[in-house]
Amino acid sequence: MNEMQIVLDGTVTTPAGFTAVAVAAGLKKENQLDLALVVADTDCSCAAMFTKNQVVAAPVIVDRETLAANNSRLRAVVINSKNANACTGKPGLANARATQKMAAQALGCAANQILVLSTGVIGVQLPMAKLEAGIVAGAKGLSRENGRLAAEAIMTTDTHPKHLAVQVDLPGGSVTIGGMAKGAGMIHPNMATMLAVLTTDAAIEPDVLDGLLKTAVNQSFNRISIDGDTSTNDTILLLANGVSGTAVADPDSIAQFGAALNHLCTALAQLIVRDGEGATKFVEIQVTGANSEAEAHQIANTIATSPLVKTAFAGSDANWGRLLMAAGRAGVPFDQTKINLWIGVQQPDELQLVANGTPTEYQEAAAASVFAEPEFKILLDLESGGEETAVVWTTDLSHDYVSINADYRT
Amino acid sequence: MNEMQIVLDGTVTTPAGFTAVAVAAGLKKENQLDLALVVADTDCSCAAMFTKNQVVAAPVIVDRETLAANNSRLRAVVINSKNANACTGKPGLANARATQKMAAQALGCAANQILVLSTGVIGVQLPMAKLEAGIVAGAKGLSRENGRLAAEAIMTTDTHPKHLAVQVDLPGGSVTIGGMAKGAGMIHPNMATMLAVLTTDAAIEPDVLDGLLKTAVNQSFNRISIDGDTSTNDTILLLANGVSGTAVADPDSIAQFGAALNHLCTALAQLIVRDGEGATKFVEIQVTGANSEAEAHQIANTIATSPLVKTAFAGSDANWGRLLMAAGRAGVPFDQTKINLWIGVQQPDELQLVANGTPTEYQEAAAASVFAEPEFKILLDLESGGEETAVVWTTDLSHDYVSINADYRT
Repeated sequence: MNEMQIVLDGTVTTPAGFTAVAVAAGLKKENQLDLALVVADTDCSCAAMFTKNQVVAAPVIVDRETLAANNSRLRAVVINSKNANACTGKPGLANARATQKMAAQALGCAANQILVLSTGVIGVQLPMAKLEAGIVAGAKGLSRENGRLAAEAIMTTDTHPKHLAVQVDLPGGSVTIGGMAKGAGMIHPNMATMLAVLTTDAAIEPDVLDGLLKTAVNQSFNRISIDGDTSTNDTILLLANGVSGTAVADPDSIAQFGAALNHLCTALAQLIVRDGEGATKFVEIQVTGANSEAEAHQIANTIATSPLVKTAFAGSDANWGRLLMAAGRAGVPFDQTKINLWIGVQQPDELQLVANGTPTEYQEAAAASVFAEPEFKILLDLESGGEETAVVWTTDLSHDYVSINADYRT
Repeated sequence: MNEMQIVLDGTVTTPAGFTAVAVAAGLKKENQLDLALVVADTDCSCAAMFTKNQVVAAPVIVDRETLAANNSRLRAVVINSKNANACTGKPGLANARATQKMAAQALGCAANQILVLSTGVIGVQLPMAKLEAGIVAGAKGLSRENGRLAAEAIMTTDTHPKHLAVQVDLPGGSVTIGGMAKGAGMIHPNMATMLAVLTTDAAIEPDVLDGLLKTAVNQSFNRISIDGDTSTNDTILLLANGVSGTAVADPDSIAQFGAALNHLCTALAQLIVRDGEGATKFVEIQVTGANSEAEAHQIANTIATSPLVKTAFAGSDANWGRLLMAAGRAGVPFDQTKINLWIGVQQPDELQLVANGTPTEYQEAAAASVFAEPEFKILLDLESGGEETAVVWTTDLSHDYVSINADYRT
């Protein structure tokens, strides 16, 4: 990490000029938090990335429209859990727009200054009366103390809230970036594969913010996979309110801010993987010696999503043949007589299992001891002549994943 | 099914002029059958299809070479289970070639008249002494009575042997096609996704045989998915010995024989799905209204391999939002406001869940009762303007799948 960065146990309200609130609006059972507002004191620039799924939830449609018309005067984000408002047709779209209006009225701004995010069950209409009561009540409870509770309110099958902040000292002064994210299923790298809200008190133009967000997401949220399923609601927002008075406009500041943003996104993305549904393992998969980064990424992704690889992880079985099987079905040509495979706990190249496509004389007990760890690394060198590389972080496929998802709606 | 076809509880030895044997050669534990020979009395034409995985097992390499040099004088197939001879480098390749020579010597033919198939654990060298003893012993026990035992010997995690035969009355006389196949993991449609050996006593030229096999595989083995993983060893062979004296050469005979072959392959493919690892459900997924058959197939495949869809199947949860989520991430453009979704037990269109992208007023209990069945059907109409359609057969992702694969090697 860059020495200019200080990592804080912070939230979306750690940057100056942001408040939040979390409400138990009655969408979840038993008085659980299910609604969050994140509100800026002043107008914000905003960058956003959305799911690449062809089936997109109503809030994604509404937010795309809102940002196309207005990406420099945003004021607030309304997020509900338990209900994704996806596959809900025209009534769902009307509900997302009505949510904007309710929040605008409660917060005293315009509807096109509000973004709406939903996560939860697909195909059920939002309970609008509960949502409105929650928004009205929440608008009265906004505070800088509520960042952690907001991160809790957006959880679905997550077992803990995910949030972090980074402070970075730029030539013009110190700025802070805060963020929160939720997982924990339908997680697969195809853009921002979950909900995340990032805030900063830096002053940044929307087009600069866009570029920085794309770079950060490509190195973080697009490098994780829990189950290979891409959600209909994936959204990541980055709001910049400029309250610090420090501008990120010159190349040096942009580079330093970008590095801090990358760090924050990578940390949040890894938190999502570590809290993946039923996850008992955190596995880093690196593919090197590829002819392009896209090919390396494709192979790493295919290994990361293979059910046979992931069940072997769950069983702590160093069944490396499945790693090569998955690599081979990734659709990327390579020469199987050249490949090398290593595994390790601290470093990925501690134990070589395959050399030039042939098993080495490794001891099974040594390989098993690596796979028995809660965290380990895999390195596949294609020796394709190229030097391109890609890293992906993933989990195992456990009994608990099946249990969680076999009766998710009950 | 064509009225000219008679389905028999047959095997690879039901067609005239084929014998088989199954041996407990000591590759598996506890005296289980693990080696099969299928032998033709006379030279055979042969068509074959192999895995599209970049990582291919030694027997696939050897069989490709053998068939390139000789596809009209084949005599026998040697199949072992428990060990895939994949990712075994040059020693593995030498072992596959040595197996050809051992079988040629034991059967009194040339090495390039022998095909070798292996299935089982990846990355372990074959125990050649055991294999040789098994082949020598087996060659003395060949019989037309052993077809079912041969189907048993090639099993890995299959719970029962899979075999069938079809008799078809052609203008020139009656011919029979027999077949056996094994699953039950690493099953995903990308060519012939498992091992299958088909035999017929019809007389068919290799190029005609090739075309018939490709057509049949595309409608059967390429339409099934258990776990989305494509094996390194997938092979399907079709041997024609001409012993019936009936030629398949004129268009009528080719069409009728082709229909019977399609029926046999579809039946074997469905047997594989029904016996999928941990499978408790057999689900038919049909996508219609697509602009191309490839697009319909791509969407049906993505639904069939989605972990969230398959865990919902396991839980008998009619969580149809996941079906649309998976369809949306298939990489095929469609208009989510036009799609219709039905489910049913006998017919796919018994209960409509989504009309024009919006949930219908269906009763949850009615949907749940369909998903509670061991077999049901799903129909997704894209209304893309096109009329193309595709069907895929798949299973659920159950606790038992995880259990079977978490410690497959132990």
